[in-house]
Amino acid sequence: MREFELIDKIKKLLNQDIIGDDTAFLEKEKLNITCDVMIEDIHFRISYPPETIGFKAISVNVSDIVANGGQPLYGLVSLMIPEYIEEPYILRVYEGIKSASEFYNLSIVGGNISKAQKLGIDVFLIGKVDRFVSRKGAKVGDDVLVSGTLGDSNAGFRLLEQKKKNYTPYELKLIERHLRPTARIDYINYIRKYVNASMDISDGLSSELWHIATNSNVVIEVYKDKIPLSNELKLFAKDNELDPYEIALSGGEEYQLLFSQKPKNFNPFLDNTVIGKVVDEGKPLVLLDGKALERKGFEHFSK
Amino acid sequence: MREFELIDKIKKLLNQDIIGDDTAFLEKEKLNITCDVMIEDIHFRISYPPETIGFKAISVNVSDIVANGGQPLYGLVSLMIPEYIEEPYILRVYEGIKSASEFYNLSIVGGNISKAQKLGIDVFLIGKVDRFVSRKGAKVGDDVLVSGTLGDSNAGFRLLEQKKKNYTPYELKLIERHLRPTARIDYINYIRKYVNASMDISDGLSSELWHIATNSNVVIEVYKDKIPLSNELKLFAKDNELDPYEIALSGGEEYQLLFSQKPKNFNPFLDNTVIGKVVDEGKPLVLLDGKALERKGFEHFSK
Repeated sequence: MREFELIDKIKKLLNQDIIGDDTAFLEKEKLNITCDVMIEDIHFRISYPPETIGFKAISVNVSDIVANGGQPLYGLVSLMIPEYIEEPYILRVYEGIKSASEFYNLSIVGGNISKAQKLGIDVFLIGKVDRFVSRKGAKVGDDVLVSGTLGDSNAGFRLLEQKKKNYTPYELKLIERHLRPTARIDYINYIRKYVNASMDISDGLSSELWHIATNSNVVIEVYKDKIPLSNELKLFAKDNELDPYEIALSGGEEYQLLFSQKPKNFNPFLDNTVIGKVVDEGKPLVLLDGKALERKGFEHFSK
Repeated sequence: MREFELIDKIKKLLNQDIIGDDTAFLEKEKLNITCDVMIEDIHFRISYPPETIGFKAISVNVSDIVANGGQPLYGLVSLMIPEYIEEPYILRVYEGIKSASEFYNLSIVGGNISKAQKLGIDVFLIGKVDRFVSRKGAKVGDDVLVSGTLGDSNAGFRLLEQKKKNYTPYELKLIERHLRPTARIDYINYIRKYVNASMDISDGLSSELWHIATNSNVVIEVYKDKIPLSNELKLFAKDNELDPYEIALSGGEEYQLLFSQKPKNFNPFLDNTVIGKVVDEGKPLVLLDGKALERKGFEHFSK
């Protein structure tokens, strides 16, 4: 089963055009809403520090709200608890949730607790949005940008799975970026004011570029050597004989932003990088250094 | 781990008094929000018709919105799909979701799809609420009422678990009430106008009576022979040598309403029944025929 094909069929069945962005826009209420779940052994290991699981469950949802120009306000937490998880573990997850809600200045106003076979945390978030910035707004002539650096979270995930006894300082930094990503709330006002199309990078840059190209029906050209990489990722790639750009293009769970805007709107004070341009319209296409970019993002059900 | 104790600790940790009703009230926005999950082998069997699973996932959330006087508006569906579930099954679940959203006049505006070990459907619902009717408002002198009849869903569940080859017509009716409960949207305006305290009966009448008593800090007296039972439940109890009142008091997943109001507000046109009275205040207590009622509702983690 392919996730995106299934979503298309569901959209058709529900006759809902609104489905397809990082969040759903409630125009009348000027709110945007989203939900995202984290499940044990699918999105995290039970051995991770429980606080990081709670913090991340909030971050991934804040990231979606922010990507569409929203300011997170309220959240509900739906917790699915298996029998082998003890109360102190759950309370530590909630310590992470509390810490995240303070960091993002939002209120957890309720939720639900259910028995389950595996630990799961489903978060539902409501944001306030004046101008909803979707995946549809990219225009010919726009610069295409990303925030931060890419691939770090994926490298951190690979390092965690190596289960080493000792990690070097640069490895610990990458692991931290996987375990405790922070959503880009510093971009909220900027997105609302200047950005034409936006989404967060949760499934890998290549996959997300195709989302913008498809939804905006435009041709995007990006350049490999423009993709911002951290020094830590470069060290990781060298030590593990991997291509760091490959990791950056396919690595999921970044929670950085991918957006397009008029070149004149570039703000050098933000940690953003122009990685390409919208060069044509009328068909969806993504070119990497002139060649069609393979869609290699992280997809559920892709095995 | 006891669900209610855990919820109390989480409330304390988050420093959130708002948590504890069927839904969370966003006073400024005049909205109430809720989430409730259904998980395979915890809340349903994969052998149930998939449409009924989708329909019920919406109903249980509508029931919460309605219980607090809300009118359901928008929903998100978070679907957790194991590898052994095929696409046609999922689309049939969505047929049920669509059918329910038409029935309740609400819009499913988005959601999320994730890989999982067991099928799970987590629904988030937003309602519009002018006057939020909580569990706290019961007053001395109020009548205590329930809508519909109680115990049917629990009997239907027991019948399903018997896995008989053939069911009698009355048994099929009870099964239908378990598989496809409809939330009491016919009570929305009534609750807003006349009701002092309200909640839905999802964990069993005895448990819910204690919730009202505790949250309102009152003494409630109810009478066994006033509890409304369907003819089908009476037949079931007779055939299975069970006490129908026991089933009605402890049976979960009713999605009927439990509420309190001034006696003069009784409306004989509604299918509601006075089962007791609020007789005192200052301490939480529930009396059944004069004796303290054991709290026997369905609780997760109770074993």
